[in-house]
Amino acid sequence: MKEFQLIEKFFTKQASSRRDVELGIGDDCALVIPAVNKSIAISCDTLVENVHFYPDIPPKALGYKSLAVNLSDLASMGAEPAWMTLALTLPDVDEEWLTSYSEGLFEAAEYYNIALVGGDTTRGPRSITITVNGQVPTGKALTRNGARNGDWIYVTGTLGDSALGLDVIRGSRQVAPEHQDYLVNRHYYPSPRLLAGQALRNLASSAIDLSDGLLSDIQHVLKLSGMSAVIDVDLLPLSDALKSSVNDEEALSYALTGGEDYELLFSVPEAQKGALEIALANTGVSFAQIGQVSTGDKLRLIRNGQPYTPTNIGFEHFS
Amino acid sequence: MKEFQLIEKFFTKQASSRRDVELGIGDDCALVIPAVNKSIAISCDTLVENVHFYPDIPPKALGYKSLAVNLSDLASMGAEPAWMTLALTLPDVDEEWLTSYSEGLFEAAEYYNIALVGGDTTRGPRSITITVNGQVPTGKALTRNGARNGDWIYVTGTLGDSALGLDVIRGSRQVAPEHQDYLVNRHYYPSPRLLAGQALRNLASSAIDLSDGLLSDIQHVLKLSGMSAVIDVDLLPLSDALKSSVNDEEALSYALTGGEDYELLFSVPEAQKGALEIALANTGVSFAQIGQVSTGDKLRLIRNGQPYTPTNIGFEHFS
Repeated sequence: MKEFQLIEKFFTKQASSRRDVELGIGDDCALVIPAVNKSIAISCDTLVENVHFYPDIPPKALGYKSLAVNLSDLASMGAEPAWMTLALTLPDVDEEWLTSYSEGLFEAAEYYNIALVGGDTTRGPRSITITVNGQVPTGKALTRNGARNGDWIYVTGTLGDSALGLDVIRGSRQVAPEHQDYLVNRHYYPSPRLLAGQALRNLASSAIDLSDGLLSDIQHVLKLSGMSAVIDVDLLPLSDALKSSVNDEEALSYALTGGEDYELLFSVPEAQKGALEIALANTGVSFAQIGQVSTGDKLRLIRNGQPYTPTNIGFEHFS
Repeated sequence: MKEFQLIEKFFTKQASSRRDVELGIGDDCALVIPAVNKSIAISCDTLVENVHFYPDIPPKALGYKSLAVNLSDLASMGAEPAWMTLALTLPDVDEEWLTSYSEGLFEAAEYYNIALVGGDTTRGPRSITITVNGQVPTGKALTRNGARNGDWIYVTGTLGDSALGLDVIRGSRQVAPEHQDYLVNRHYYPSPRLLAGQALRNLASSAIDLSDGLLSDIQHVLKLSGMSAVIDVDLLPLSDALKSSVNDEEALSYALTGGEDYELLFSVPEAQKGALEIALANTGVSFAQIGQVSTGDKLRLIRNGQPYTPTNIGFEHFS
């Protein structure tokens, strides 16, 4: 295990410091000082090679993304990132791989101001578990269960890019050269919408991040809120890269069911609509209203004012 | 992944509640409310099959132990357990295995009052990452770096049982029937010394838990404290089961280098010795003074007042 202890030193050296970190890596536990009147938001995600990522993913992208997907969970609660642990299981000590992986990880960690305070490095089949802690004023966190009849439904950013990016990476789609980097980067380097999440704290009635795809993730909100919804697919925000790379039906399919967008999906009561638009405009994150919460138990999609059933999707599975 | 979502529900049902858990499993993050004037102690351990445990470990023991080893890290800081996340990677959904695993996990969780607030369940080679959060009054945590010249060195419990227990399990040692269960249980069901750790908060100058073996773990304390030590091996606390199962030299070897005891090793200034004995007696945990912190850079062992070199151990490696 000696060589694995060297890895820990490697991560220790780069660990960024926050003033609320009383004791960082190197003892049996890290010690952190929580803020007064704030709750701690905790989330944990495991990425396993050949399940959640392919062996050929650039290690820098994996480092960035393995943290970004966790930060996206903090974003959807309206929390600010604070501290994290990294459990890294690797088949061997590959310094080049580790250099790139940690570069990506710390790029995200420094940008989003989260301190690596502990972890464990072990030998085994490659997998990564990151646990993040964020902070949010007690009682102000965004949850999945607050959507109410008539609330407007929004998403940040654009949808479907990441899934198309993955198809480009896997070679199953060809796109014009000018769109390739954008789409691949949307897959490898998702942007957790932390500022948007924080801006939504007093405005949104529910929020979730989009990891499995819009049609899948919205069900969690609707089920926990005891609501249904109408989504106008004409309003789904699509990037130029997506629109010019595939036909309209395919674009909608990517936007509705493509996973790993890591955008926020949230609902806002009518009375907060104006305040929302101002608050989000200040964050610089684009957003679009795509539908409305309704009663009932069946999610409805409309296009050109007519009921819409996406092609090439097991839509029944979702409804 | 559907079947894996069922697993999550399985753990959700059994999750114990604490009043400081504002929101448990089921949203993007859990929310917990930290206590005022306390720091949060964070630790994370990964157990990989065929690296940290054998495939034939009883799943109940694995459930218990995978949490207990993390709680031991909280104990060595003097922290009280609070919340945890579980990242469970499994090759398949084996309900019998999951029933036993969760039984062991929740047995420890309920006994030590720690709430499972989140996690991730994924398909892949079997491995377990648990991240625990504990709480300790700010400034009162025990660390590895405070041992000072002349401080007395103590351990809790008895040493070497777990390593002998593993040899019994693997079939490389035969012991008398009356000692077998005790030794095997010391390996499978370690007792994190949480009450002892909390009792040491204002008394000990340093503390660490014994996971790799006394000779290995004491080095972390001595190195970070800039000290050395003398250990009188005649004072090492040995169980009757250990003493009657192997010869004296072998018993010392197990006690000095056997791993996974999860006892506490700590140092106490002369002035606190009396208070220590009262405080620990109240916890019901046995403890023994085994040596003294000294200056110098070479750990010394003595036996019958003479320098001692353990047999069958790469002692030079440690000194």
